[in-house]
Amino acid sequence: MKIEIFDSTLRDGAQGEGVSFSVEDKLKILTALDNFGIDFVEAGTPASNPKDLEFFHEAKKLNLKTSKLVAFGSTKRKGLSPEEDEGCNALLSAETDYIVVFGKSYDFHVECILQTTLEENLYMIFDTVKYLVGKNKKVIFDAEHFFDGYKANKNYAVDTIIAAEKAGAETIVLCDTNGSCFPDEIAFITSAVCGITNTKIGIHCHNDTGCAVANSIAAVRRGAVHVQGTFVGIGERCGNANLSTLIPDLQLKLGYACVPEEAMPHLTETAQFIAEVTNIRLARNLPYVGGSAFSHKGGMHIDGVAKDPKTFEHIEPEKIGNERNILLSEVSGRSALLSKIKKIIPDFDKNDEVIIRLTDIIKSLEHNGYQFEAANASFELLVLKELGKFTPFFEIVDFEIVSTFSALAKATVTIRVGDKVETAFDEGEGPVNAVDKALRKALEMFYPVIKKMWLTDYKVRIINGSAHTAAITRVLIESNDGKHSWTTVGASDNIISASIIALTDSLEYMLYKENAHGNN
Amino acid sequence: MKIEIFDSTLRDGAQGEGVSFSVEDKLKILTALDNFGIDFVEAGTPASNPKDLEFFHEAKKLNLKTSKLVAFGSTKRKGLSPEEDEGCNALLSAETDYIVVFGKSYDFHVECILQTTLEENLYMIFDTVKYLVGKNKKVIFDAEHFFDGYKANKNYAVDTIIAAEKAGAETIVLCDTNGSCFPDEIAFITSAVCGITNTKIGIHCHNDTGCAVANSIAAVRRGAVHVQGTFVGIGERCGNANLSTLIPDLQLKLGYACVPEEAMPHLTETAQFIAEVTNIRLARNLPYVGGSAFSHKGGMHIDGVAKDPKTFEHIEPEKIGNERNILLSEVSGRSALLSKIKKIIPDFDKNDEVIIRLTDIIKSLEHNGYQFEAANASFELLVLKELGKFTPFFEIVDFEIVSTFSALAKATVTIRVGDKVETAFDEGEGPVNAVDKALRKALEMFYPVIKKMWLTDYKVRIINGSAHTAAITRVLIESNDGKHSWTTVGASDNIISASIIALTDSLEYMLYKENAHGNN
Repeated sequence: MKIEIFDSTLRDGAQGEGVSFSVEDKLKILTALDNFGIDFVEAGTPASNPKDLEFFHEAKKLNLKTSKLVAFGSTKRKGLSPEEDEGCNALLSAETDYIVVFGKSYDFHVECILQTTLEENLYMIFDTVKYLVGKNKKVIFDAEHFFDGYKANKNYAVDTIIAAEKAGAETIVLCDTNGSCFPDEIAFITSAVCGITNTKIGIHCHNDTGCAVANSIAAVRRGAVHVQGTFVGIGERCGNANLSTLIPDLQLKLGYACVPEEAMPHLTETAQFIAEVTNIRLARNLPYVGGSAFSHKGGMHIDGVAKDPKTFEHIEPEKIGNERNILLSEVSGRSALLSKIKKIIPDFDKNDEVIIRLTDIIKSLEHNGYQFEAANASFELLVLKELGKFTPFFEIVDFEIVSTFSALAKATVTIRVGDKVETAFDEGEGPVNAVDKALRKALEMFYPVIKKMWLTDYKVRIINGSAHTAAITRVLIESNDGKHSWTTVGASDNIISASIIALTDSLEYMLYKENAHGNN
Repeated sequence: MKIEIFDSTLRDGAQGEGVSFSVEDKLKILTALDNFGIDFVEAGTPASNPKDLEFFHEAKKLNLKTSKLVAFGSTKRKGLSPEEDEGCNALLSAETDYIVVFGKSYDFHVECILQTTLEENLYMIFDTVKYLVGKNKKVIFDAEHFFDGYKANKNYAVDTIIAAEKAGAETIVLCDTNGSCFPDEIAFITSAVCGITNTKIGIHCHNDTGCAVANSIAAVRRGAVHVQGTFVGIGERCGNANLSTLIPDLQLKLGYACVPEEAMPHLTETAQFIAEVTNIRLARNLPYVGGSAFSHKGGMHIDGVAKDPKTFEHIEPEKIGNERNILLSEVSGRSALLSKIKKIIPDFDKNDEVIIRLTDIIKSLEHNGYQFEAANASFELLVLKELGKFTPFFEIVDFEIVSTFSALAKATVTIRVGDKVETAFDEGEGPVNAVDKALRKALEMFYPVIKKMWLTDYKVRIINGSAHTAAITRVLIESNDGKHSWTTVGASDNIISASIIALTDSLEYMLYKENAHGNN
């Protein structure tokens, strides 16, 4: 059975703390959602944000394949006709085929927020939907606080959606706006509503009780055919129902059709891309798409997965474009390390001595602040070095950095490649940038290929940040060459040294992968 | 109705990616859980980790008020008697009153992982539980993969728990080990099991479909009286049922009794403390305890909450020790700013001119990489400065930092306080540490009170980290004086300058709060 998927990352998602989209960001996310096969993309509130109008006009120029663009706004104000209402007209000026109109379904809100009569609110809903339908718009009616309203005054809540239905709404969406409900109530109420309307019913859940996904599923199982959420779960307060969880739950586990089958293996990269544009990190333990979603750490789990992945995985990670990850830790032991090494060197012959030595090295590095779980490139170099399969491409002989109040930071770096020594000097915005530039300048004389790569993220974390311990700084550097990205780690009690270790690993890794030969 | 709460942060939680506890960490978390009134704390696997045994012996010295300490291990190996089994004896040597024994309830696992007969597995369960009960232990039997097993071979799954029941288990816990289930199935199966056993039934869920909380609630509603999870949701793969969500769901919204009533206002701080010791950041959008759980950003939401918080909050944040947060953004507008200012200056008289000016300043700073949502102290200083209510305590006149390959970083800082100028020099592990030390050295001559504060976290993020844009570095510094912590922000294209801006704000904020008077 087909379930319509409605993404509100660009509207409800933009209400999440710390989220701020530029017009360019929004166009990127819209394109990603369209490529993934999302049915509806709610993209802004033209009435309250002029930047949103600009976006809708830009978006019209895109040739969307599957997604229908939706503008969002409220019912008209009391006392005005829709023709006179600024908001209704702003909605039209977005020039979308679909419009979401939200209206109040909870008597308490009508009286406390709108400060009008229950009857007047019904007219506001009916008139607004009718007006927009008359302008050839397809209207989705979001019944705000529907479940809370139904629990407080069932008849009135139902009257509000009947008003929208009579005015010609194409879909009526039951909203748990405050995220206060549990699956049993959602199931019961959705079932009741489906029995009394002939219009498509949708569901819109928030995660304030941690049940947004389960609540959405409960509604679908009782007749809802339209699901609203945000792709990576961002939104007001605790966020909206997370579509990157809901879509595979519904499609891969419960047998509904949400997106084209061939889209599913792109789920993880789509979620990562949207998180990246939103400038947030995906929680590692996010179902399906998180970096840890298929990470196995306990020794018994790792042994089980080695025998048959089904033993400790509810689904094959490949189906949603994620991958299995065997972790190293005190509780996992050597078989974990072995399978990580085999990922790097497929023909590695189980060699206990090497594994014991590597285990010791890793333990001691982790004790000193390193963390390899998030730094695969540094881990790979470490293994290659220990197996004698890696020859360093260069060595840093010396550096000096000077940073002052008013001038650019200055760095001098001396490197050795083979028997040649080169010194380069550069300035930069800050010491890490200066040393990065000087080091590259020196390296490029030998390896011009490094011009192709750049730093995409630079993260610093203080380990043991308490009063009485010496702080170790851990630096994670993410680099990219336009095709791949890789992460390296450095740790030291000096942020500059830690940065240079991670930077060196990043450059070495790129040169290794490119199989670079020096011009020396 | 009383529901037993069983926390496995220190056992299943330790299987989460990136989690590694020292014995000291574990003692801290145990104490926090005990103070919060958690019934059971599962704290380790003595058979597979010698550090865990050490912990159990240390933990015995604590005077726990409410929590019962639990050791975790598997059924005996096939072919051995429990007396001969190393694992069973390691369990006893932990010297806890309670022991969790996990056993296989899924025929596939018996054959694939244990590689033994279905009958032998029943004996392994029975004998192990019987042996431990005979040693005066109270045994909780974790029926691993129970739900998957029940769906595949109902009779066999039930036989495994009957074996544990007959051997004297006090509680039988149904585990969704792979996190593959949905609330409907959990409800149905739990209900069936409660009908055929006389033993207390528990539930243990993982979050791989995003339903761990809803699944646990479904089980409780059908008769489970014991709930397992981890306080902040950490655990293998996507984690365990999050107790900081489940406890308030069950106790405050569904009327069950989980923890003492007076503990509930400490929920947020307990979750934050456990996250801090675990060295993870709580997701801001985590229900109840997240920093954004009661953050309002949309203009209509902010207006609604101003009229009555119930309009957009499912529960009062005070009940669980969290607080309401009004955010600033393009979509929120001036009323948000006004209520933030009123939090700082309660008698602030609505002054449009100041608000417009502040809105412009904040927009321009955010454009340049600042972010005030997570930096309340910097925001407060900004408002105070703009209202003419803040006089800087000092001014940095100049600094120079030198960092080289082999030596400590060196910093010279010159400050002015009133009409006095002081220069101080210090060395440190890295330039930020050196400049921090030199700056404090200079400042302490005027304000000895700053000796009381220290840096607890230092975070760096590159904004616009793509190839063709100049990167801005944003630094967030968290400081603590033993009683409070506060966060400040600095942004610049130079990481040192950004750090010094955030550091200066942090020091100024502390001096302002202490109402410090200089010795000048």
